Amino acid sequence: MTFIDLARRAREAAHWLAVATRADKDAGLHAMADTLETRCAEVLDANEGDVRAAQESGTPEALLDRLRLDEQRVAGMAAGLRDVADLPDPVGEVLRGSVLPNGLELRQVRVPFGVVGIIYEARPNVTADAAGICLKSGNAALLRGSSTARRTNEAVVHLLRSAAASTGLPADVVQLVTGGREAAKELMRARDLVDVLVPRGGAGLIRAVVGESTVPVIETGVGNCHVYVDRAADLDKALAIVLNAKTHRPSVCNAAESLLVHADVAEAFVPRVVAALHEAGVTVHGDDAFARHDGVLPASEDDYRTEYLSLDIAAAVVPDLDAAVRHIRTYSSGHTEAIVTDSQDAARRFVAAVDSAAVMVNASTRFTDGGEFGFGAEIGISTQKLHARGPMGLPEMTSTKYVVTGDGHVR
Amino acid sequence: MTFIDLARRAREAAHWLAVATRADKDAGLHAMADTLETRCAEVLDANEGDVRAAQESGTPEALLDRLRLDEQRVAGMAAGLRDVADLPDPVGEVLRGSVLPNGLELRQVRVPFGVVGIIYEARPNVTADAAGICLKSGNAALLRGSSTARRTNEAVVHLLRSAAASTGLPADVVQLVTGGREAAKELMRARDLVDVLVPRGGAGLIRAVVGESTVPVIETGVGNCHVYVDRAADLDKALAIVLNAKTHRPSVCNAAESLLVHADVAEAFVPRVVAALHEAGVTVHGDDAFARHDGVLPASEDDYRTEYLSLDIAAAVVPDLDAAVRHIRTYSSGHTEAIVTDSQDAARRFVAAVDSAAVMVNASTRFTDGGEFGFGAEIGISTQKLHARGPMGLPEMTSTKYVVTGDGHVR
Repeated sequence: MTFIDLARRAREAAHWLAVATRADKDAGLHAMADTLETRCAEVLDANEGDVRAAQESGTPEALLDRLRLDEQRVAGMAAGLRDVADLPDPVGEVLRGSVLPNGLELRQVRVPFGVVGIIYEARPNVTADAAGICLKSGNAALLRGSSTARRTNEAVVHLLRSAAASTGLPADVVQLVTGGREAAKELMRARDLVDVLVPRGGAGLIRAVVGESTVPVIETGVGNCHVYVDRAADLDKALAIVLNAKTHRPSVCNAAESLLVHADVAEAFVPRVVAALHEAGVTVHGDDAFARHDGVLPASEDDYRTEYLSLDIAAAVVPDLDAAVRHIRTYSSGHTEAIVTDSQDAARRFVAAVDSAAVMVNASTRFTDGGEFGFGAEIGISTQKLHARGPMGLPEMTSTKYVVTGDGHVR
Repeated sequence: MTFIDLARRAREAAHWLAVATRADKDAGLHAMADTLETRCAEVLDANEGDVRAAQESGTPEALLDRLRLDEQRVAGMAAGLRDVADLPDPVGEVLRGSVLPNGLELRQVRVPFGVVGIIYEARPNVTADAAGICLKSGNAALLRGSSTARRTNEAVVHLLRSAAASTGLPADVVQLVTGGREAAKELMRARDLVDVLVPRGGAGLIRAVVGESTVPVIETGVGNCHVYVDRAADLDKALAIVLNAKTHRPSVCNAAESLLVHADVAEAFVPRVVAALHEAGVTVHGDDAFARHDGVLPASEDDYRTEYLSLDIAAAVVPDLDAAVRHIRTYSSGHTEAIVTDSQDAARRFVAAVDSAAVMVNASTRFTDGGEFGFGAEIGISTQKLHARGPMGLPEMTSTKYVVTGDGHVR
């Protein structure tokens, strides 16, 4: 099947989904979850093939672990689909409504996008996650996984499609975009066939999709997150927040990558935080004020720009809050920044001046997350300003439509 | 000044605007309005130069009229700025707010985009309109008008900038992007310097901007709008709506371009509507059922695709509502479609199945308009699904930011 055929089928399925009830969609989600569990062996067989091929081509163990499925992980995928079924249906929500002076009734209503493309990397659980979020938000999904997980993704999508069909949904609510790079390119260029593209993965993948797409993209994920310790900070809280933000899970986008300390508390805080970071196994790349301490490496301009995703942190002392804001404006990727302060004025100024998807006051950057925010499901964290910014749940996977009702009204 | 310098100045002004109060911005808007009125002569002098040059190059009278300013039109621009000052400030509006189970306070707050580029055609009043809407929504404006209105735009922007500066705002809240096509290209490619681009003008301009931009674009305007007369329509209301939608102002994007009639009422309605349209000076391009009537031209596939913006309408008889929906899905530009029906069921099905920015039930397509919707100001009508869809007022010119407040919270 050509990509155009695939996209046309997705459009037909999207037309069907646009008028589907919540019950239709939830029944499909539950059937998908049940089928993944009862036919788990098919998925694991396919996955074994992917893992073996990856091993043979010398893939490192960390990546193999992300690729590898077992019964428990498949059960997790099923549980995720059931969780999405339990969430409220965003479609039909009335965002604004009023009666205009001439008697026309105006409503702004949430509607699905239509056809959504998701381009993602190795973890095959994203296949079920993304399909579930798209289905619940009324969108037909075109999934483009990595070639490393091809067999697994094919098996999962085959089960999801037959489960959908068994409940009367069109199987084409979810389709896999297979084929080489050419197919990915067609997906990114299909402006009139695909409504939105969401890349999920590392910085390289996202850069490529943003650069090549003519389809509107929701950019996700890159996080060069900062923690700023103000002169009015409670230094015990500051220490706990820095350690948590850096070390709780260093490989994710909401981990801290840079630490800024107000000059007035540098003498009291820098030695403590350097010692604690070292004890936690973190390499500190610091400016002169930090580099005076044993074991701190001198930071280059590049360090301040880097999303390490590892046990490394860039650090600098700043003369005041405005300098911290300027540093963040220069180097941040616009994901999450935190201030630690007991000053109401400092918190207000920092929140207003810092232009990122999330700004934390006296809390770890690690809280920028759909689950932590109570969204129930998350397709990614948007770092762009158009449409959705921050963690994206089901409502962010919809557009809106104005419905205007009259009684023969003319102008 | 190079474009990069211009954009950097805009970014500086945007940082200033991000923390400006409503009072700051409204004072700027009132000063701009006052200055346009008291120094109106400077604008009219410059405009005379543009009009003379346009005349000499053989510009048709209709376009000259769009270009020409007089005292009254300048007063209209000033009044528009004062209207925007009277509107509520969208920045700071809390869209969601809750206390998470762990005690973190979560708020989603409206914030400005930052730097907004507007690319537009001849009417110089857009210069003041766009500057006012951008300023009120906290965005620094980079305005790219047409070369035909260069002198006028320079005079207007000069006055707006000196008015802004007189109240303590940075003059760079509004800047004109002059220079040849190369400058427009730089504006469209300045992904990290410009946050959003809004093209305002004809289909050609919008296509060019969408095709060339790497900056996120909000697509506006093209309207191939349909009126569908259902079998359960009140035919008097249907006649009034068709005439109004087609003839009230044929040159605008919310004018109707296509008429679809349910077969069951074709015999009663088609002769009446053809006669009335002919009497109003409209050329009807119809399918076989329409073309049987005197003076109706046979419609080609192209007619159904065309945004005439003139006293022409494409027309067809359809066997049922589903066929009307299929026709609309095939040919519509996704702007506005109307159904005329007294059937609740037909209205519900049409509203759910038609995927356009606005769907009218028993009302003219001409109501899709920021003014009619009560938005007070309108930067354009979005026909895309990402971010904003339908008329865009001040809130649509903003992004959001999550603000999370804790007390030393860590994960």
